[in-house]
Amino acid sequence: MRGFGSRRAPILASRRKSIANWSKTRVKALVKESAAPGLKLKDVAEPTMREDEVLIRVRCAGICGTDVHIYDWDAWARGRVKPPLVVGHEFAGEVVDVGRLVTDVRTGDRVTAEGHIVDGRCPLCRTGNAHVCPRTRIIGVDRDGCFAEYITMPATNVWHLDDNVSLDVGGIHDPMGNAFHTALTAEIPGSTVLVTGCGPIGLFAIGICRAAGASHVIASDVNETRLALARRMGATVTVNPDGAADAVRSATGGLGVDVVLEMSGVPSAVHQAFDLVRVGGRVQMLGIPSKPMDVNFATEVIFKGITIYGVVGRRMYDTWLQMTRFLRAGLFDPTPVITHRFPLTAVDEAIRAIKSGEAGKVIFEID
Amino acid sequence: MRGFGSRRAPILASRRKSIANWSKTRVKALVKESAAPGLKLKDVAEPTMREDEVLIRVRCAGICGTDVHIYDWDAWARGRVKPPLVVGHEFAGEVVDVGRLVTDVRTGDRVTAEGHIVDGRCPLCRTGNAHVCPRTRIIGVDRDGCFAEYITMPATNVWHLDDNVSLDVGGIHDPMGNAFHTALTAEIPGSTVLVTGCGPIGLFAIGICRAAGASHVIASDVNETRLALARRMGATVTVNPDGAADAVRSATGGLGVDVVLEMSGVPSAVHQAFDLVRVGGRVQMLGIPSKPMDVNFATEVIFKGITIYGVVGRRMYDTWLQMTRFLRAGLFDPTPVITHRFPLTAVDEAIRAIKSGEAGKVIFEID
Amino acid sequence: MRGFGSRRAPILASRRKSIANWSKTRVKALVKESAAPGLKLKDVAEPTMREDEVLIRVRCAGICGTDVHIYDWDAWARGRVKPPLVVGHEFAGEVVDVGRLVTDVRTGDRVTAEGHIVDGRCPLCRTGNAHVCPRTRIIGVDRDGCFAEYITMPATNVWHLDDNVSLDVGGIHDPMGNAFHTALTAEIPGSTVLVTGCGPIGLFAIGICRAAGASHVIASDVNETRLALARRMGATVTVNPDGAADAVRSATGGLGVDVVLEMSGVPSAVHQAFDLVRVGGRVQMLGIPSKPMDVNFATEVIFKGITIYGVVGRRMYDTWLQMTRFLRAGLFDPTPVITHRFPLTAVDEAIRAIKSGEAGKVIFEID
Amino acid sequence: MRGFGSRRAPILASRRKSIANWSKTRVKALVKESAAPGLKLKDVAEPTMREDEVLIRVRCAGICGTDVHIYDWDAWARGRVKPPLVVGHEFAGEVVDVGRLVTDVRTGDRVTAEGHIVDGRCPLCRTGNAHVCPRTRIIGVDRDGCFAEYITMPATNVWHLDDNVSLDVGGIHDPMGNAFHTALTAEIPGSTVLVTGCGPIGLFAIGICRAAGASHVIASDVNETRLALARRMGATVTVNPDGAADAVRSATGGLGVDVVLEMSGVPSAVHQAFDLVRVGGRVQMLGIPSKPMDVNFATEVIFKGITIYGVVGRRMYDTWLQMTRFLRAGLFDPTPVITHRFPLTAVDEAIRAIKSGEAGKVIFEID
Repeated sequence: MRGFGSRRAPILASRRKSIANWSKTRVKALVKESAAPGLKLKDVAEPTMREDEVLIRVRCAGICGTDVHIYDWDAWARGRVKPPLVVGHEFAGEVVDVGRLVTDVRTGDRVTAEGHIVDGRCPLCRTGNAHVCPRTRIIGVDRDGCFAEYITMPATNVWHLDDNVSLDVGGIHDPMGNAFHTALTAEIPGSTVLVTGCGPIGLFAIGICRAAGASHVIASDVNETRLALARRMGATVTVNPDGAADAVRSATGGLGVDVVLEMSGVPSAVHQAFDLVRVGGRVQMLGIPSKPMDVNFATEVIFKGITIYGVVGRRMYDTWLQMTRFLRAGLFDPTPVITHRFPLTAVDEAIRAIKSGEAGKVIFEID
Repeated sequence: MRGFGSRRAPILASRRKSIANWSKTRVKALVKESAAPGLKLKDVAEPTMREDEVLIRVRCAGICGTDVHIYDWDAWARGRVKPPLVVGHEFAGEVVDVGRLVTDVRTGDRVTAEGHIVDGRCPLCRTGNAHVCPRTRIIGVDRDGCFAEYITMPATNVWHLDDNVSLDVGGIHDPMGNAFHTALTAEIPGSTVLVTGCGPIGLFAIGICRAAGASHVIASDVNETRLALARRMGATVTVNPDGAADAVRSATGGLGVDVVLEMSGVPSAVHQAFDLVRVGGRVQMLGIPSKPMDVNFATEVIFKGITIYGVVGRRMYDTWLQMTRFLRAGLFDPTPVITHRFPLTAVDEAIRAIKSGEAGKVIFEID
Repeated sequence: MRGFGSRRAPILASRRKSIANWSKTRVKALVKESAAPGLKLKDVAEPTMREDEVLIRVRCAGICGTDVHIYDWDAWARGRVKPPLVVGHEFAGEVVDVGRLVTDVRTGDRVTAEGHIVDGRCPLCRTGNAHVCPRTRIIGVDRDGCFAEYITMPATNVWHLDDNVSLDVGGIHDPMGNAFHTALTAEIPGSTVLVTGCGPIGLFAIGICRAAGASHVIASDVNETRLALARRMGATVTVNPDGAADAVRSATGGLGVDVVLEMSGVPSAVHQAFDLVRVGGRVQMLGIPSKPMDVNFATEVIFKGITIYGVVGRRMYDTWLQMTRFLRAGLFDPTPVITHRFPLTAVDEAIRAIKSGEAGKVIFEID
Repeated sequence: MRGFGSRRAPILASRRKSIANWSKTRVKALVKESAAPGLKLKDVAEPTMREDEVLIRVRCAGICGTDVHIYDWDAWARGRVKPPLVVGHEFAGEVVDVGRLVTDVRTGDRVTAEGHIVDGRCPLCRTGNAHVCPRTRIIGVDRDGCFAEYITMPATNVWHLDDNVSLDVGGIHDPMGNAFHTALTAEIPGSTVLVTGCGPIGLFAIGICRAAGASHVIASDVNETRLALARRMGATVTVNPDGAADAVRSATGGLGVDVVLEMSGVPSAVHQAFDLVRVGGRVQMLGIPSKPMDVNFATEVIFKGITIYGVVGRRMYDTWLQMTRFLRAGLFDPTPVITHRFPLTAVDEAIRAIKSGEAGKVIFEID
């Protein structure tokens, strides 16, 4: 990729609208080459930009559990992903070229993007439910992703970063957006909240709930490192799952919390969510149980009169606007959650860091 | 009970405020006498009315699945009910006496009542969530009920019947209220709806959804008699559960329905609810699965982005007001659902009618 | 326009994608030629279609009060409209050509369209509030409109008509959409409703409220013809404005209605809306007062604890989907409201019909 | 009142349930004696407690603009208040006796109370709208109030203070509740907010909005002392009304704020609210214009697509629960707003302090 960086400056300077002379260029990317575990850093053809798309030079990219599934080539990955594929769906960078039809993105813009590419025309997209568009294609899963020096994105998916938002924070807007979506579709001001699972999204959610006026945020996890991060993000109380019931009862006079954010996907935590939410309360489910589990709907859901909400992605683009507002105002600082930074070459090390259970958010930094 | 009826007329005529001279009176009631199956019609002491209560002469009383559980003395009943107890919680009648502190109910009033007696003072009761008050006591379950000639009720639980609402319709306000609560806490105008389970509450819900502007109501049940009632209540399409998926796909262009009202408690219907609701849709769960069941939260709930709402009782008293409005306006006629009427003496026959699966709503008429 | 019609058939047959050979064609249109009253039927250049647009042969077009303002060249029109301009914004027709970038509209499709052309990219558009996009351009007001044989529309604004929706009903989707927006952003099932003003939108709203389960709809107007139409659309009670207070009090036990739909813009009706809505109720304001009016916010709004909602256009595209659902299901029939039909040549007569106050909806039919 | 205080201790010690032996006692109170300006500190008969009421020794009491109206005996007061009357409706204190029917309040409890005494039985009270009960009677306006050593309150109106809430903060729960009601019935997390009017309720609202995640709070007032308090409560920007438009445009990219809290009742501020709220935004009106004002509904409300909400009192008791949660969690500290404290004897001085425009909240402290 040597020489490429030096070429970028004049491009920006000239705001040129064509990448014709790049056509033979190859760029580095982390690729799932074949139906087997692992990811490989390769030179690939530079992505081809459509007229309604932009070309973005990726500077920071977050690694998600989904990427670990693809790396490991587990059952879900085998059923969904078609190699070869450039992986990765969380990123920020700078726009280096824009298609002819694009009107509101310019070269040089600092941007991130919604990684769910939707049809924009189905009844769901047209009525504020694009986050569940049945024709969603996800970058890094269904088409080439962002663990690469360059990526193309439809202009409609591009989201501008505020000047005071750094590129590393830009690179984790996707999971932060999950956290905002999970937290702020519940009624948070004045509410008591239990967050089960302090992975990166749970940690973000803790900070968001505090900034939005939750009166008490109890964070639960099995891992002490994560609980320390939870305290740093503002959790009122942090507990091991064994202690969650006592913590909730003590904080709520035995009633249960108004809202549970279930961020773990662990069956015992799901049961705890139903057990510890108050009658008439709300359970937001983001963590994905890996297989079916037993549920007693009578006692856990119906007699309790609760509401359960399954969280998919981020609301387009209500969640993004809220996120920008919180970041711009300094209401919420996600940077303590970013614990590890690697170059693309260190992919195996990055995956190991995630699997250790000791990491917060792990990101790639791409020069 | 001899002589009692003849005494009632002058009572009403005189609007007398005391029942002191009734104190030795005994009234007929269906009683769970001991921890064993069955119910027995007995003479019991007339209920004692507190100062903030009213005494109601029961004229019509609906029989609920709960009453069948108590009759059968199943595991749930054994764990909850303490004999001896007068059973029954759905009723209408006429007020024959009112306590000293009661200001807005008068003798002679035609009334029904919310059977959930709540504390009225806990944070839930004080914030519009009395339907899930943790200290709820249910008539006919936790204290003497309405399968009797007379019942006392706190005045706060009494609901006046409109002049044009008959006493038999008054006697089924409790389950109709469940149906209104289930239907109208979803967004119904213009929505496509699947009702899984055409017992009485499902049947009421079909009529309510049509009156509230559902654009398509698909009703599913295994029983042809019930499907015929479903058609009578306005279902657009009625199907056997095996045909529900095709009916939904055909009606919704493959997308799924906006709202499912799960009225059966049957595990296969619960799975069907999750399967046939559209992404981002809403499943209202009223039917009570009798035991835990396997759920794949990933595919059935989270990836679909749906909302699940567990329905308890009736919202106090939003649901009751809506119900009165629908009945007063003639938007909704529940009478086709009432298929069987019995005197209290025919309790065994009434229970058999319910168990036959051929009945709609079964009620007692009490002279 | 002779010869044009005969040319259209082969166009549809060949599904051709270019209109290059039409470039010299002229089409008939009602044009505001200069800054003066009146409209003139002229031959104008056929509209030029962009790559993301479609060309529609207009078959039916509704005439709106806005068009009357432009015809009369009143103060509002003088401040907003820049002649020359083809007028009209309510229509339905058949697609005769589609731009290269259009993916979900085909020649031959029967369509109507949202006449507000928005930027689609501002924070409001991206968060479900496109109906108030600050960069809205309205056809027939800010760019050429639909009182013409042909119109171009961005494909994103096109809305397909169901097979069972006739073109004349298609041609009034815009004002029906106003009515759906006004009615269904209030809580209608079980509510008592007062509609002040029985012009076409008020008349539509009456039918919508009844279909959505309003328990009582009181319609008020000064004009007996319109009140007769109101009854035909399902009003429970129709009254002269002088009788509205009594009708509301009688229907609501003196409390006031839950919802007022203010459809007249007449100051006395606005005051009546505030007076006759119950405490804590909701006033939907669609009618546009022509000038400032005195309001006593203390007694009319604040002490009553009411909510006022200003209605702009139609929610994109929630309102459109609801409308389609109501029409498809036959819940609502707008056709009685269409009282007059004219060819484009009879524009002066059509405007006179509207001004007579005796008309419901007046439409153009274009062969 | 000498001797009374010394008697109170044994009362509390004995938790006695009767005040029979107090029956001749007289207590000090600020009384509107006759239809003329002023208030007079007098010995009055101790209030008589009903069986469902409690007797409270008042310790702190806030002075409201309403009290100033009564003091001044203006047109509103003359039309509403019937002398003689003990004035005052904001207070906190200790329970010294409870009626026989009261179950959840005990002597010695530290409490405040909702001053709107509602019927509890009308359709509005029964459906979560007690704050607009048509039969509301307000203490200090329609029945004897709290500027006195003792007051009786229905137990249903009593609200317990948390141990960590001081009595002076308890004494201003009524206006804080107005602020919570005004702020939290809008969507605050991530929103931009303009507060027009920095009297006590406006000042509270600023702090509440910040605690609930408003991203930008612009506070506007004519008075520098109040703007200094606004900054202390967390306003992002404070401006003179002349500068509000620029401040809003600068903070919102010209779009306008999501939410305006209109706290002044000044016509120019009301117009500013409509002008500076964004299209589709929300204006919460609490400030009470003293007379009718001109409004251009077309341009100020309808074409902007905004929602206006008239704020009455506090939601019973959702607002109270939120308030308690915010205070208990330390999310919000109202104490900087309390700028003046007086004994009941200094009523004239207290009223002067309020009229000076330099005061925040002025309270009475009663030994």
